[in-house]
Amino acid sequence: MSDHDELLARIQGVSRLAEFNQWLGLEVTAVAPGEAELVLQWKKELGQYSGFLHAGIQGALIDTACGFAAATLSGHVLASQFTVRCLRPAVGQSFRVVARVVKPGRQQIFTAAELYATDNGEEKLVASGDTLLVPVAS
Amino acid sequence: MSDHDELLARIQGVSRLAEFNQWLGLEVTAVAPGEAELVLQWKKELGQYSGFLHAGIQGALIDTACGFAAATLSGHVLASQFTVRCLRPAVGQSFRVVARVVKPGRQQIFTAAELYATDNGEEKLVASGDTLLVPVAS
Amino acid sequence: MSDHDELLARIQGVSRLAEFNQWLGLEVTAVAPGEAELVLQWKKELGQYSGFLHAGIQGALIDTACGFAAATLSGHVLASQFTVRCLRPAVGQSFRVVARVVKPGRQQIFTAAELYATDNGEEKLVASGDTLLVPVAS
Amino acid sequence: MSDHDELLARIQGVSRLAEFNQWLGLEVTAVAPGEAELVLQWKKELGQYSGFLHAGIQGALIDTACGFAAATLSGHVLASQFTVRCLRPAVGQSFRVVARVVKPGRQQIFTAAELYATDNGEEKLVASGDTLLVPVAS
Repeated sequence: MSDHDELLARIQGVSRLAEFNQWLGLEVTAVAPGEAELVLQWKKELGQYSGFLHAGIQGALIDTACGFAAATLSGHVLASQFTVRCLRPAVGQSFRVVARVVKPGRQQIFTAAELYATDNGEEKLVASGDTLLVPVAS
Repeated sequence: MSDHDELLARIQGVSRLAEFNQWLGLEVTAVAPGEAELVLQWKKELGQYSGFLHAGIQGALIDTACGFAAATLSGHVLASQFTVRCLRPAVGQSFRVVARVVKPGRQQIFTAAELYATDNGEEKLVASGDTLLVPVAS
Repeated sequence: MSDHDELLARIQGVSRLAEFNQWLGLEVTAVAPGEAELVLQWKKELGQYSGFLHAGIQGALIDTACGFAAATLSGHVLASQFTVRCLRPAVGQSFRVVARVVKPGRQQIFTAAELYATDNGEEKLVASGDTLLVPVAS
Repeated sequence: MSDHDELLARIQGVSRLAEFNQWLGLEVTAVAPGEAELVLQWKKELGQYSGFLHAGIQGALIDTACGFAAATLSGHVLASQFTVRCLRPAVGQSFRVVARVVKPGRQQIFTAAELYATDNGEEKLVASGDTLLVPVAS
């Protein structure tokens, strides 16, 4: 197994431990040192009152992708704080979130992410966010 | 029906429109002008990798409670941005989130919320957050 | 000297080390374990383009008060991240900021603050904010 | 005068109206539709207690650059909320902040910025941030 395949398998294993990620049907589609990409297929249970992707799910995608990006460098991590900026209505058949470590550190890890929706074949940026994480003893 | 009962019924009706809130089993337990309280019972599908309440669900609770607090004053609203501060591990059998409008406005509404976990009969503050919302034409 | 007077003298000493605080004319008016209050008198050099208190100064007040609140418990600290919510135009002859530790910790310290303006004898809340800090070896 | 020169002159004019920007010695060095760059020379009055650039000044630079980036598209704007992430100690002889509009809008404008320090000829990213602004009637 290549280093990349091992890293991908490790992060996919962490994701499987999270019951909520399983319910979502979240797929870890790509990783690299300091980076992670997740894909989620729309289902109606993910909607808010007007049928857009619930802001809480947008937050879950951003927070999770940021956590996985950090975990590629640091083992176990916990989010201290995260922010979601809702740029456009999150409407689509599938969603892709891409996260990266902006600044790693021993005490804290700064990360950022963008969330894209694919609606009728066209992909658009719908939200951005950032997460500050702390490494924890595993 | 009293004004309070009408307001509670209206906000509960908005919550029922959100498929994700139904899946969560979210209850709107109290409202007042500029305020809202929600309660969520733990189930294992809500967990992150070590079994705490998933940070995304924490965000959903904070964002939703803030939105309902704003909706008591403003009709339809959309979140522009929200932040979740993860103060302690979110572990418990039930969760309660209390939100309030900090500053209402015609262009934007500032709100804040606290999230509490009840674990073995003891309630603790586990997260705080804030949401900036904009009124939208209904 | 009482414990309180010692704590106040220590925090005032830290503030004097900051050249920018001196230029501002920032006064540390009260401290308690986990709390700090600062007062700033308006001068025209503090204005933004329409004569309100510059948002950067609002941030400086919030970040500084939060840092001092943390320093009452933790010795040397550095801000990781801070947020300022501009609730109302910051207009006044004097400004008062009150900060408190929301959750202390060994790895990180969560704090929050409110900024008030006194305009023609009436005090109003004009901004709120929060700062996440890390303790540093002194 | 070219369109670019006119835009630069207009934004420099706005900056001159802000007394605090004048005290700082802030220069508007470049603008384009949706973008702005500012440069600040270090002076000791800008320091916090250990001689780094005060976090409040970092916030002022980020908030101001974001506001100017928005103003290139929207006329008068006011910040609703801004966040500063302090990635590295802000030490240097000069500082450069680059801001861009992430999502323009009629009700609100999302912007982001990076702050760089040049220390002994080497430029490093020291902070990042974002600002949410609202257009105001001029």
